[in-house]
Amino acid sequence: MPELRKDPVVGRWVIISTERARRPSDFGPEPVRAKGGHCVFCPGNEDKTPPEVLAGRPPHTAPNTPGWTYRVVPNKFPALRIEGELEPSGEGLYDRMNGIGAHEVVIESPDHQASLATLGTEVVADALLACRERVLDLKKDPRFEYILIFKNHGEAAGASLEHPHSQLIATPIIPIMVKEELDGGARYYDLKQRCVWCDIIRQDRGGRRMILEDNGFIVLAPFAPRFPFETWIMPRAHRSSFEESGYDDLHGLARTLREFLGRMNRVLNTPPYNFMLHTAPLHDSRLPHFHWHLEIIPKLTKVAGFEWGSGFFINPMGPEDSAGHLREAP
Amino acid sequence: MPELRKDPVVGRWVIISTERARRPSDFGPEPVRAKGGHCVFCPGNEDKTPPEVLAGRPPHTAPNTPGWTYRVVPNKFPALRIEGELEPSGEGLYDRMNGIGAHEVVIESPDHQASLATLGTEVVADALLACRERVLDLKKDPRFEYILIFKNHGEAAGASLEHPHSQLIATPIIPIMVKEELDGGARYYDLKQRCVWCDIIRQDRGGRRMILEDNGFIVLAPFAPRFPFETWIMPRAHRSSFEESGYDDLHGLARTLREFLGRMNRVLNTPPYNFMLHTAPLHDSRLPHFHWHLEIIPKLTKVAGFEWGSGFFINPMGPEDSAGHLREAP
Repeated sequence: MPELRKDPVVGRWVIISTERARRPSDFGPEPVRAKGGHCVFCPGNEDKTPPEVLAGRPPHTAPNTPGWTYRVVPNKFPALRIEGELEPSGEGLYDRMNGIGAHEVVIESPDHQASLATLGTEVVADALLACRERVLDLKKDPRFEYILIFKNHGEAAGASLEHPHSQLIATPIIPIMVKEELDGGARYYDLKQRCVWCDIIRQDRGGRRMILEDNGFIVLAPFAPRFPFETWIMPRAHRSSFEESGYDDLHGLARTLREFLGRMNRVLNTPPYNFMLHTAPLHDSRLPHFHWHLEIIPKLTKVAGFEWGSGFFINPMGPEDSAGHLREAP
Repeated sequence: MPELRKDPVVGRWVIISTERARRPSDFGPEPVRAKGGHCVFCPGNEDKTPPEVLAGRPPHTAPNTPGWTYRVVPNKFPALRIEGELEPSGEGLYDRMNGIGAHEVVIESPDHQASLATLGTEVVADALLACRERVLDLKKDPRFEYILIFKNHGEAAGASLEHPHSQLIATPIIPIMVKEELDGGARYYDLKQRCVWCDIIRQDRGGRRMILEDNGFIVLAPFAPRFPFETWIMPRAHRSSFEESGYDDLHGLARTLREFLGRMNRVLNTPPYNFMLHTAPLHDSRLPHFHWHLEIIPKLTKVAGFEWGSGFFINPMGPEDSAGHLREAP
């Protein structure tokens, strides 16, 4: 059973997941991964994943057989386990609880070679709609406080499989980074009676940090990005919960995300990247001080001692420059 | 001039350092670096670095000539600039200031092939004493609030040069990670009237997370480590400021650090690693709620979307296991 542990100084929780009983020799600076050949996410290998919890497939096909357009399956090597209770306990001054949660994979297409930038808008929209469905379903479980939807694309960005997929992890604790955004948003709202992300949109719309605006979404380079070409996609209108998005909203997001990723790939030569969706906690609805958004970070630089020790990031490219390149991309 | 910018939501400052006017094509997932041949830190190339600000050298040798045992030089490509004033200013809802600071490199040995684990104790102690000297000198500059001493060892850990060296960066702002530790330490002290790190030492000394204890220092795997084999080295006695360490203290640290790095290299096959020294802010002396410590993280795993989006880290090895391997290392 994985374990959640809290740092007694800063209150950051970590997941200790020792299920695979790793030895020191399992770690290498560049772990070797099997490439090519057999892919557990490809059609025909449905029995190599845990049984699907959701899929887009014609009515005449059976679950866990070929014919699907997307599949959502539990992660075979989950960071957190769905079975059990949290059983929080202490160990002297330390706090721990069982590593309860859900860890699912959204296989976005049967096509191993595809990517969100090359798939059709309908396919991308289906993946987003599948994420929404899974959030709405997992939200019923009272043990979960938050669901983070994210993507690792490319080995340097932490992907262990090439086949196009996103992931979601439901956690029994609101992640510290989301908590910091919630707290920051609440402080700003207390002061101004306005959403800080709405104010960012008002200030930056049409300006030097704007990349594009379409389909009800705005794509911006943030004022203080940690990484070169870091980008936020936000609904133009104030919305705090991703899972309250409608069908049209998610089709709009699919078009905007594809457009952005296409430009990013042309400007940066198809880089590895991560995206992370920040939405309100599961039990908070219609927050006036939080605005959901998708953060995209191409993996272009290394994080080193100064960043790990300070939390300061050194970014060699200002957001005005990165937005300019992406705005003017062919 | 680099710029310091503050994220308007979470209050995290970043350094935008565009001096080298990078284009998108400058970024590659794995940037190619010149290897072998010419090294600017090797003896004979003293004119390839900015003039030394401190060096260990026999009295008959001139500055910036061979013969030194260690050298401290300004970084040729500094993240922050020493000249100028902060000139804080706003841009609508955003905050910025000039990127003022100091960025220095401690070249630990003339031997290009050496490392802290293989250098003699005296040499390591000299490097630590040089860091202390530089902190005491830079502390006189009223523009600086903090100095982070850190090391990037190996390309995967962000080192751009092989030659053994550490770095220090003086910042006009207390880094957010240090602030979080200060705040966490103060909360604990308010509650208990005790230093949380002293309590950690009391609880873990001789236990499953202890790696070694010697020379007035204790080496522990923290209860909630972000990374496999993450390790803290702390003075046994309560001390808040590294730069108040005496000659004997730093010789003790040198011996303990060498011993730890030797064991880490044997257990993990000489991994790339970072260390970061967390000490009290420059203008805070003898804090009862802060305890200086060195954090060491071998670079064994990749940080991916879940970590970047949540602040949760998934660690495949518990600290009891990593401490066991390091405790029993030959």
